[in-house]
Amino acid sequence: MKSIETQIRVRYADTDMSGIVYNANYLVWFEAARGEFFWQRGMDYARDIEARGYHWPVTEANLRYHAPAFYGDLLTVRAWIADVKSRAMTVRYEISRDGKKLCTGFTTHINIDKDGRPTAYPDDIRKLLTPED
Amino acid sequence: MKSIETQIRVRYADTDMSGIVYNANYLVWFEAARGEFFWQRGMDYARDIEARGYHWPVTEANLRYHAPAFYGDLLTVRAWIADVKSRAMTVRYEISRDGKKLCTGFTTHINIDKDGRPTAYPDDIRKLLTPED
Amino acid sequence: MKSIETQIRVRYADTDMSGIVYNANYLVWFEAARGEFFWQRGMDYARDIEARGYHWPVTEANLRYHAPAFYGDLLTVRAWIADVKSRAMTVRYEISRDGKKLCTGFTTHINIDKDGRPTAYPDDIRKLLTPED
Amino acid sequence: MKSIETQIRVRYADTDMSGIVYNANYLVWFEAARGEFFWQRGMDYARDIEARGYHWPVTEANLRYHAPAFYGDLLTVRAWIADVKSRAMTVRYEISRDGKKLCTGFTTHINIDKDGRPTAYPDDIRKLLTPED
Repeated sequence: MKSIETQIRVRYADTDMSGIVYNANYLVWFEAARGEFFWQRGMDYARDIEARGYHWPVTEANLRYHAPAFYGDLLTVRAWIADVKSRAMTVRYEISRDGKKLCTGFTTHINIDKDGRPTAYPDDIRKLLTPED
Repeated sequence: MKSIETQIRVRYADTDMSGIVYNANYLVWFEAARGEFFWQRGMDYARDIEARGYHWPVTEANLRYHAPAFYGDLLTVRAWIADVKSRAMTVRYEISRDGKKLCTGFTTHINIDKDGRPTAYPDDIRKLLTPED
Repeated sequence: MKSIETQIRVRYADTDMSGIVYNANYLVWFEAARGEFFWQRGMDYARDIEARGYHWPVTEANLRYHAPAFYGDLLTVRAWIADVKSRAMTVRYEISRDGKKLCTGFTTHINIDKDGRPTAYPDDIRKLLTPED
Repeated sequence: MKSIETQIRVRYADTDMSGIVYNANYLVWFEAARGEFFWQRGMDYARDIEARGYHWPVTEANLRYHAPAFYGDLLTVRAWIADVKSRAMTVRYEISRDGKKLCTGFTTHINIDKDGRPTAYPDDIRKLLTPED
């Protein structure tokens, strides 16, 4: 299963007055991990997907918060493509600190063309997304 | 079922390079709606819940994105308490523009005390949260 | 001098672990006030400026933090166009709570066309921006 | 002059509908660089400054935007302590991409104690902040 791993250092901006990371920031870290999937392959989502006329908007997001993250924490974000359909996919995430699971979740994405219509992934992109290419 | 409604004007900061509202911002608007639940009753979450030693961290969040929101849109966020257990609750949300549903979702929250232990809601708070008080 | 006033309710997302509003959020509220300048005139920056081929990127921003803002605070953001040149302008801001000044600042903006070149404001927009039109 | 350097990868969340990085995010990157000042020395602002009873709120911020940053850009943030007074300091920043200067600015910070009173830096912290320790 295609996966990537990246590290995030928690900033002051990420925290809230309860002293922990604010809940919406994990969704941003999920996105950062999707970006890394491309960057770590020498590719770029904007250049290699969007510039070709495709967009992958989020159609659903789910997050489970297991334990809080704090300022200065060095977090590991692991993401993997859990499912690829003809024109949609599901990415799963696990955010942890020193092996302790803090947040898990998934996002689903539909592949749309320039006119916003759902469309099948072209072969090369489908191959890129599929386990064991 | 206890519900509130509030309006949000989409800012430039809320948008991303695809020209629509970035997905994580809806979670912030969910939170704004929870805040309004208190403010519209002359109360305040920080003053009336947290200052008494309770915190309501999010334990799960789910969002379904039905249609995009754009800069300048005047959005209606409707939130209602869908379920109250002895020490947890589920809040549901619907964000719309001119009656068109853009995003729906829920958050679940656990009631913890100052030491981070799950604890039952005190009676007055439970009453506040429960339909038909 | 053309000015507008709008109100902002401080959200949990706006706060940080020191218990006060995080410094970068004031810049977002400055932008919200610029948006209100248009919305309160039945106009919209995206529709009435950008759709005509102009963009007003920020070229400089300055903020002075006089006193902290807190969760739940109802803030007043006042903004006024302090200076209009042929192709640039300065907007000033004052954010206060119950008359107490919390943050003041300014942003400067250059008017660029679709190719990113600095260009003079068209007459109607210049009139809109200028005191006592 | 004490300086640090860190790298930032621009996320989708950092961009806005004009296709470039939203202006307020540079302030967050300024903060990330201040954090790195400590992390790169094996220290942590929360643990080594705040836990000792000091806070360094921003009293002024200035940003000059020279050129836009885009999604996927790998930015270099350089920060250096430009001035240290008995109880305040100024930090300067330069954000660049491949040697091209995109944003420069400064923040000033006052050292306050637990009661919010301006107070002199203790000797060891002053030494940490001062050039040529």
